[in-house]
Amino acid sequence: MSVTAVRTARAPREARERFRRGLRATTAGWAPGFAQANLLAVPADWAYDVLLFCQRNPKPCPVLDVTDAGAWTTPLAPGADLRTDLPGYRVWRHGVPVEEPTDVLRHWRKNLVSFLIGCSFTFETALVAAGVPMRHVEQGRTVPMYTTRRPCRPAGRLHGPMVVSMRPVPPELLGAAISESALLPAVHGGPVHCGEPGGLGIADLSRPDFGDAVEAAPGDIPVFWTCGVTLQAVVAASRPPFALTHAPGQMFVTDARDEQNRVA
Amino acid sequence: MSVTAVRTARAPREARERFRRGLRATTAGWAPGFAQANLLAVPADWAYDVLLFCQRNPKPCPVLDVTDAGAWTTPLAPGADLRTDLPGYRVWRHGVPVEEPTDVLRHWRKNLVSFLIGCSFTFETALVAAGVPMRHVEQGRTVPMYTTRRPCRPAGRLHGPMVVSMRPVPPELLGAAISESALLPAVHGGPVHCGEPGGLGIADLSRPDFGDAVEAAPGDIPVFWTCGVTLQAVVAASRPPFALTHAPGQMFVTDARDEQNRVA
Repeated sequence: MSVTAVRTARAPREARERFRRGLRATTAGWAPGFAQANLLAVPADWAYDVLLFCQRNPKPCPVLDVTDAGAWTTPLAPGADLRTDLPGYRVWRHGVPVEEPTDVLRHWRKNLVSFLIGCSFTFETALVAAGVPMRHVEQGRTVPMYTTRRPCRPAGRLHGPMVVSMRPVPPELLGAAISESALLPAVHGGPVHCGEPGGLGIADLSRPDFGDAVEAAPGDIPVFWTCGVTLQAVVAASRPPFALTHAPGQMFVTDARDEQNRVA
Repeated sequence: MSVTAVRTARAPREARERFRRGLRATTAGWAPGFAQANLLAVPADWAYDVLLFCQRNPKPCPVLDVTDAGAWTTPLAPGADLRTDLPGYRVWRHGVPVEEPTDVLRHWRKNLVSFLIGCSFTFETALVAAGVPMRHVEQGRTVPMYTTRRPCRPAGRLHGPMVVSMRPVPPELLGAAISESALLPAVHGGPVHCGEPGGLGIADLSRPDFGDAVEAAPGDIPVFWTCGVTLQAVVAASRPPFALTHAPGQMFVTDARDEQNRVA
């Protein structure tokens, strides 16, 4: 396969088609240069609480789009179907994940409002371009995510802890990793913490709450960014009667270019 | 009066106290270094539409805070009272401004949700520090604001045109004006347009829709930033039964430092 073909196969539309046909994989490294998104769909009577929660917690929950009730389309990816085009979903009932299907066609309800939330996979392209290695991509793993002891600011019926993703960064590249991601606030912006994981209440880096543990190289500093999976921790803590989300690490690949989220 | 005394008199709390006692003035240049905010308060059953509208139009409507229904306090300025601490308000009924009082105590309702929206006055401090003259402040006028022909993206029952503020900038300082404001996306970020006002559908710079016309120096380029008064154009176009806003140019002065809104 030529380089061109590989690039084409990785374009957002083709990625979504493969996931629609049932391929299950983490989307890290897919369609580089295009923004990826977390999904949370809730019944309309919970939509205000979710939107207010995101407004009050913009770093873990930067909103990229909100659909009208019942719609499974988004201007972020014309032609895409939010019910089928992610590799994996979670179905939540009263705060408990009860199923992890590859589509949610039979779980769909006409009053569902879908929230698409920025994902740190989006800034990975900029970090790679700056020479920062992505250990989880190199190792074929889902980025490790950890539930912290930092509470988010509550909104209405919603509350819960902040979740972070972690990437080991060589110390000489820490500056680049921080400044490149800081320019992309719509996809979490700069890190919330570097170094000692105890500062976030994380006991053991080898046991992530979501995703896979990743091998650091000697000298690497663990760098923590807020993570859209925060909303899943919030669903678990706040127990809305029904919700749909993506499966952690298995994101919605949009047609929006990373540059559109860059502030300067 | 010493420089220190002047600075103290301009601190946010003292500014708010003077406005609470009835002083009516544009807040441009007051409490430099502290963020200012647009106010829109609507009945709770309109709050979701407003929040969704802001999410879909983040450049004119960057949300800094949303109160719980009925609350007149905000963490952006502990001790402040949103009903009295702005120099001037507008009371809207069915999309028509019916009154411009200096407080809204007797108009307050216990189901009102208040939105505080970033204001371009906030980045003026950074522009001044970069040497960019603020013609409207020098001339003792309210910044000129214009209703454009660019529609915002609708949300629920809300729709309307984008409103912009205009500052004449010497060409050699255009770069600084753009890059300094771009780093402050929570207060509108970089300009949406520079130069020929016809590009935004503005016929005559000498006749602003809000605020005062301002004298440009020879060679100045008109630079247009999105403006939180957009929400007032939206109220006028969408006609909710009741709304309260600030009077254009007479903002809520918060205790939040400008730097808190800076991304890099």
